[in-house]
Amino acid sequence: MAEAEAGQARNDTRAQIVARAAELFALWGYAGASISDIAAAVGVSKPALYHHFAGKDELYTEIVVTVLSGMLDNARSSLRRIKDPAERLRVFMRAHADYFESNQHAYVAAQLGFRGLGGKQEKRDRALKCRDAYEQLLRDLLQDAHESGALRIDDVAVAGRLVLSSLNWMARWYHPDGKLRARDFADQYATMLLDGFRPRPSG
Amino acid sequence: MAEAEAGQARNDTRAQIVARAAELFALWGYAGASISDIAAAVGVSKPALYHHFAGKDELYTEIVVTVLSGMLDNARSSLRRIKDPAERLRVFMRAHADYFESNQHAYVAAQLGFRGLGGKQEKRDRALKCRDAYEQLLRDLLQDAHESGALRIDDVAVAGRLVLSSLNWMARWYHPDGKLRARDFADQYATMLLDGFRPRPSG
Repeated sequence: MAEAEAGQARNDTRAQIVARAAELFALWGYAGASISDIAAAVGVSKPALYHHFAGKDELYTEIVVTVLSGMLDNARSSLRRIKDPAERLRVFMRAHADYFESNQHAYVAAQLGFRGLGGKQEKRDRALKCRDAYEQLLRDLLQDAHESGALRIDDVAVAGRLVLSSLNWMARWYHPDGKLRARDFADQYATMLLDGFRPRPSG
Repeated sequence: MAEAEAGQARNDTRAQIVARAAELFALWGYAGASISDIAAAVGVSKPALYHHFAGKDELYTEIVVTVLSGMLDNARSSLRRIKDPAERLRVFMRAHADYFESNQHAYVAAQLGFRGLGGKQEKRDRALKCRDAYEQLLRDLLQDAHESGALRIDDVAVAGRLVLSSLNWMARWYHPDGKLRARDFADQYATMLLDGFRPRPSG
């Protein structure tokens, strides 16, 4: 029991370090936040922080893995019961926006790029695998929609990139104090991407 | 004549400082590149650099103004003879991609955000004015297309954001050594945005 509690306390500190580091990276950039800044923000000593992470790059990789695996799980569970191909795209986009809205600091930090990826090779591989799996999930969704005839998407790689660009760029302009939630914008984007700007004969 | 030459040399040094600073900011982030790094990269002393710019924030503002005013001029001149509303959107997107491709470091540096904006108020205002004018150019283009009936765009602000998101995010994944140019991707995006993913009766 005492051992379980010690393990829990260790995990809590670790989670706190990741959360505060994400905040500082999001605010000041990767180079702008030092290990000392992060330790001070958590309220632990530098050696205590190094007990959890070998360095800033390993800590950064942890943030990236947390975000990418979280987005992947979130998208998969949101899509579980959705059958309609166009609706699947909309649900994917909403889920992405929801994750961003609920995890803004970590999301922005993870977006700073893979330049800071470091630490154990295993962890770095996991980050890249999560990213690839997320992109593949979207491409498969688009490919299925194309094959069923519900959508017409000649290049799923470019179409997937267009979808992700619209969502990823939100981190640059979205203000949580506005009237609309991130998912509302994702919804509007989904409609525009599905219908296009050219008027449709029926509409 | 000697005075004109001295003025020219001064402008050349200034332009070189801006170019090398853009490169370092693009590679290392705003916090990651110091005035000393920039001076060393240009091959001038720190005092010589301070002769041109009062500080890093003023230098950064100069980069942002250069990029935004360059994009605005580029878009305006590209659109000058284009009348067809859908074609105007395509030309705007291509012009944006071309500017990005020809000025990658400065473009990426300017994208780091307005957090580093500093220096004279006049210059900061100019940066914001250029950004607003660029966004307005795109919105006007979309609004005109909507009013003419050529396109149907119910919310030009959101549509404009979708267009700019697709283009701005290029800086995060585009590799100049690939087969396709940035403008080719902009072209594919334009087609997708105009036609939408849902099949059209005629097509």
